[in-house]
Amino acid sequence: MYKFFLYVLAVGTAALMGLATLTYAEAPKVLTQVPGYYRIQLGQFEITALYDGAIELDTKLLKNTTATDLQRLLSRMFVGNPKMQTAVNAYLINTGKNLVLVDTGAAKLFGPSLGFVLQNMKASGYEPTQVDTVIITHLHGDHMGGLNDAGGQPLFSKAKILVSQADNDFWLSQKVADEAPEAMKPFFKMARDSAAPYLASGQWATFTEGSVLVPGIQAVKASGHTPGHTAYAVESDGQKLLIWGDLVHAHAVQFARPGVSIEFDVDQKQAIATRRSIMKTAAAEKFLVAGMHLPFPGIGHVRADGKGSYSWVPIEFAPLTKVVNP
Amino acid sequence: MYKFFLYVLAVGTAALMGLATLTYAEAPKVLTQVPGYYRIQLGQFEITALYDGAIELDTKLLKNTTATDLQRLLSRMFVGNPKMQTAVNAYLINTGKNLVLVDTGAAKLFGPSLGFVLQNMKASGYEPTQVDTVIITHLHGDHMGGLNDAGGQPLFSKAKILVSQADNDFWLSQKVADEAPEAMKPFFKMARDSAAPYLASGQWATFTEGSVLVPGIQAVKASGHTPGHTAYAVESDGQKLLIWGDLVHAHAVQFARPGVSIEFDVDQKQAIATRRSIMKTAAAEKFLVAGMHLPFPGIGHVRADGKGSYSWVPIEFAPLTKVVNP
Repeated sequence: MYKFFLYVLAVGTAALMGLATLTYAEAPKVLTQVPGYYRIQLGQFEITALYDGAIELDTKLLKNTTATDLQRLLSRMFVGNPKMQTAVNAYLINTGKNLVLVDTGAAKLFGPSLGFVLQNMKASGYEPTQVDTVIITHLHGDHMGGLNDAGGQPLFSKAKILVSQADNDFWLSQKVADEAPEAMKPFFKMARDSAAPYLASGQWATFTEGSVLVPGIQAVKASGHTPGHTAYAVESDGQKLLIWGDLVHAHAVQFARPGVSIEFDVDQKQAIATRRSIMKTAAAEKFLVAGMHLPFPGIGHVRADGKGSYSWVPIEFAPLTKVVNP
Repeated sequence: MYKFFLYVLAVGTAALMGLATLTYAEAPKVLTQVPGYYRIQLGQFEITALYDGAIELDTKLLKNTTATDLQRLLSRMFVGNPKMQTAVNAYLINTGKNLVLVDTGAAKLFGPSLGFVLQNMKASGYEPTQVDTVIITHLHGDHMGGLNDAGGQPLFSKAKILVSQADNDFWLSQKVADEAPEAMKPFFKMARDSAAPYLASGQWATFTEGSVLVPGIQAVKASGHTPGHTAYAVESDGQKLLIWGDLVHAHAVQFARPGVSIEFDVDQKQAIATRRSIMKTAAAEKFLVAGMHLPFPGIGHVRADGKGSYSWVPIEFAPLTKVVNP
């Protein structure tokens, strides 16, 4: 066994031979993180992952598991317990014809550790006024909160905002909100407040499953997490990416155990069935996937490990010209 | 089975309801990658991973394996074959007292896809003249080429350059170079050319195994890849990171099979023994490791999977204040 760390802090002088004495000033620590964006090319499309930040979720939110299995799975991926870091991502797609933002982050709806999509979009070289289409995977606050600035003013003045009919009809319904459990009511309010300016301006629109929203981007039914939770199949020159929204909240757990759901799933049973089905297809067809709560940039592949269990294989950091599909 | 990708390219009009017609200009693609640096805090130390770029290595360079096992291992990690992307990383450590660069990248010794350490160091907020100590893991061109600029002038005018005695005596020896196989001779010339300006200025110095080079950074014997190949144990406030140089060239293969070596290893048998020993310790003690040829930023943990097999678990992208040891 190496014992190297025992001695690192020892007061000692290195045995440096032949060294002329040099003097220098201490360099102040910079202490800033790299901007939170990352790009890939998918055929002719430019895809930019945008980091909204990360929150600590309580692992007790995970359902259909045991404390023992949970601890084993989190520990093998070096993820914290009972608080696990959970990223929030969005994706900006430049097809050459359309500039499409998929989800917008949380803005300040869920505290100060989120809300950086706008800043990172700007760092990546785009302004929100250039976006012509915003697609929302589902109407939870950490996906649509970033539609507006801190004062509630719309950021995407030239965009159409596309939302699945089923989520629109659920989250914006006064009747559904009135009948919801008290703990759920704030989520309905967030959805209505975020949507309001765009409903007023006529920029808000709904789509049904299977719609091609812009050339190369199609809505794919992925319900369960919410009634209208939607994935987006993106394809250019035969290169494929499925942006799967909230199919996974806990990568260390739900790839190995797709049957584990999370408290936030409106229909737990359907959410599990959807996860199993999409993971099976992604592993078989080996296309790229991107997820809003996978570790940033949240882009990678799904590997089937047998017995209904999967692994997450993140893409490797690469220059922009790197082809990403195997 | 979902068939979503069959329809993405279909000429179709989305069923968009209630949408006012909007007009917009096409946004030009930005087509730049995020700067190649990434930061963590390790106790009081600021660690900045610096990306030198990536090269495509021929998987036939890997030894002690079979074509079948190689293909299986590469494929399960979605890594190319026969050309696998291999990153080149360096690490800048600001201890508060010292600014230490561990390796310098290849500059232009290995083609245009490498040589970006200097650019990324500047993007991260540091100048090479602020560096007071450069530590080299071993005297291969992709680790020491970046000591000088394109014209051969030294970049680190105020730094001492620290090299293990064993690598110094091997790579800078005229006698060893003369006796080396013809194919190896260019590597000796690269080492001597890169070292020359610093030898002349008196900035070059050697150390022996176990030396504490600056407070908090200790040289750890890791020979095999080269005679003086050295890892560095970094520790602050009980947080630990082992920068292990070239312990791994093919992450998809050599974690699962530490017994697989690479053509570049000077002593294949010793390189394998060193890899097994360090992986065993890293997995048992759960400290962070960083590697010069692991996918950028190349920082993460080692998990023991039993039967002498390991997995690479990269850290998750996080804000700078995130504690990184579990």
